[in-house]
Amino acid sequence: MTIPFPTTTQAAEILEKVRQARPRVHCLMNTVVQKFTADGITVVGGIPSMTTSLEEIESFVAKADALTINLGTLDAERRKVILLAVEIANASGKPWIVDPVHCDYSPSRLAFARELITLSPAIVRGNRAEMSLIGEVPDAIRIETGPVDHLSDATRRVRIVNGHPWMAKVTGTGCLSGGVIAAFMAVEQDALAAAASALAVTGVSAELAASCAKGPGTFEPAFLDALSAITGEDIINHARIENEQG
Amino acid sequence: MTIPFPTTTQAAEILEKVRQARPRVHCLMNTVVQKFTADGITVVGGIPSMTTSLEEIESFVAKADALTINLGTLDAERRKVILLAVEIANASGKPWIVDPVHCDYSPSRLAFARELITLSPAIVRGNRAEMSLIGEVPDAIRIETGPVDHLSDATRRVRIVNGHPWMAKVTGTGCLSGGVIAAFMAVEQDALAAAASALAVTGVSAELAASCAKGPGTFEPAFLDALSAITGEDIINHARIENEQG
Amino acid sequence: MTIPFPTTTQAAEILEKVRQARPRVHCLMNTVVQKFTADGITVVGGIPSMTTSLEEIESFVAKADALTINLGTLDAERRKVILLAVEIANASGKPWIVDPVHCDYSPSRLAFARELITLSPAIVRGNRAEMSLIGEVPDAIRIETGPVDHLSDATRRVRIVNGHPWMAKVTGTGCLSGGVIAAFMAVEQDALAAAASALAVTGVSAELAASCAKGPGTFEPAFLDALSAITGEDIINHARIENEQG
Repeated sequence: MTIPFPTTTQAAEILEKVRQARPRVHCLMNTVVQKFTADGITVVGGIPSMTTSLEEIESFVAKADALTINLGTLDAERRKVILLAVEIANASGKPWIVDPVHCDYSPSRLAFARELITLSPAIVRGNRAEMSLIGEVPDAIRIETGPVDHLSDATRRVRIVNGHPWMAKVTGTGCLSGGVIAAFMAVEQDALAAAASALAVTGVSAELAASCAKGPGTFEPAFLDALSAITGEDIINHARIENEQG
Repeated sequence: MTIPFPTTTQAAEILEKVRQARPRVHCLMNTVVQKFTADGITVVGGIPSMTTSLEEIESFVAKADALTINLGTLDAERRKVILLAVEIANASGKPWIVDPVHCDYSPSRLAFARELITLSPAIVRGNRAEMSLIGEVPDAIRIETGPVDHLSDATRRVRIVNGHPWMAKVTGTGCLSGGVIAAFMAVEQDALAAAASALAVTGVSAELAASCAKGPGTFEPAFLDALSAITGEDIINHARIENEQG
Repeated sequence: MTIPFPTTTQAAEILEKVRQARPRVHCLMNTVVQKFTADGITVVGGIPSMTTSLEEIESFVAKADALTINLGTLDAERRKVILLAVEIANASGKPWIVDPVHCDYSPSRLAFARELITLSPAIVRGNRAEMSLIGEVPDAIRIETGPVDHLSDATRRVRIVNGHPWMAKVTGTGCLSGGVIAAFMAVEQDALAAAASALAVTGVSAELAASCAKGPGTFEPAFLDALSAITGEDIINHARIENEQG
């Protein structure tokens, strides 16, 4: 049996499921973009939480439906919390995505990212520089984001051709999209379909937002507006989820 | 002697006092919304500070006129700092509000919130889920925020019927209102009147902002604009501070 | 030989160099305004990084072209990281600026700021209250920011008469300008010219932004738009870089 290829109609359906189900996403998020990520998860329909304390992580992961683990502003304490959160998520079958932010800056961060990848994330997502160091991730969905996003699992290769250059001028749009992907995974078992849908929704929202903005500064609030207002029709009309298999 | 019931005229007067006196508010604020809270306190007329280090908290509390203590992103270090800050504030008679954010997610956080409530806060503020766990707070003003805010002390029960649904879509509007309440307490001894006024000012500002915004993203900067520009006349015309006794 | 006095034409040229060279700026930034500072550095043309962990600071400083060291939300861990970052930056000849935020609130922070000043920063920047405690800094550029910014080195005294009152209503515009100054120092060896140019660019951007905003809330995204869009012509037409020497 072949797993179906993700479609724009499916993206619209998964967004609607998120809005109905209001999944809880716990974020082990770098300190820079916690609010922006929380706002993104909220306006798309989820419920974010953000604590990174060892004492409380078990309670927060227990409440969550999915996790996003972001390696920005990593330190010794965060490493411990992340490993504990992953252990609890795995024990209860909750999906998680890891975003190895800036692993190209720091050998110790790269080593930690590689350790996490052996612990069964559903998805590993990074930019080109990061993912070229990470290499293959045979047991997870692999996502390389950029002007075009490339997603793959063992049998499928997908690209998302949406978005806007101002996304790269706003710190944290990639981190935010990790939170949105987690929200989509919470309501859709096919993690590739969840991720392709989440990236199509954020990419189309960025396109809609850019037409209301005057620059990267006003693009940011307009992007949150668009994530909140985007319709199934917008997705079906504008999303470009393409088969990269030859 | 009965304590007077807060009025919209009083709310306008207390806002004017804040703008004249420029009270300093020290915030032990979760890491997610430090900037948003600082911006809110600033535009309403106060002067925020945010440090959470044990080494410096004494100096910062000494400079402050009131404190807001928010239990989001709590950890072992923050617990120590909060207890020290409360001790210093109490010793010098400075009013403080505690916001037991997400105490419904974590038993240890709930226990800490209950410990703080024995230490004479002027106000305890949370949403319905949080306050139902907190229960009665006999020696403090109790505030349950939501589409309608409910405030009570030993003899008075007030509701504020202002605000906009987008407030719930912007991470930190509740945390910000805790900072604004602290600024109002710094210039008004009747903490119930201070809190009712602060919530009326934020609620009316939200209503004014919503008419200038296209969604929750653009609502956030518009809300700060409105908090900065709101007039006594706006408050008197739009604030709904209502007696719930009866 | 006298060092030339900075001019508006030079400011336009240095901005253009930043946009071409895309310097990396590592920020040891208070937790309140990390995202705002990162966004400011990005839209002006640089590449920010923000980690504050002892384990990783060496790798991040090695990647950076300049540093901004901000003493907001200082704690014991940050002191260690800052001292290590400064040591690495000095060993590799990378320029750094120190911003002694709120050193007027805390004697221990003032003592730490003074210690840093003995370690050869290129620039020390603060507001009037902070700089009056810091006093003279004979071996560094001294900047006192306010409605008018005053810059001086051993032989030159410059003032920048640009900006807008809403800058003081948005938490972190000063911290952000420290990041922009670092980006400018990365491409211009004359640190006084770099700083004067950076402050002229941020000040003129603020003026342009204010005409597009309705208050301090909408001013913030408009300011980032303006920093992104400002042209050499805007700088030459509007920047006021003035000789204060008598």
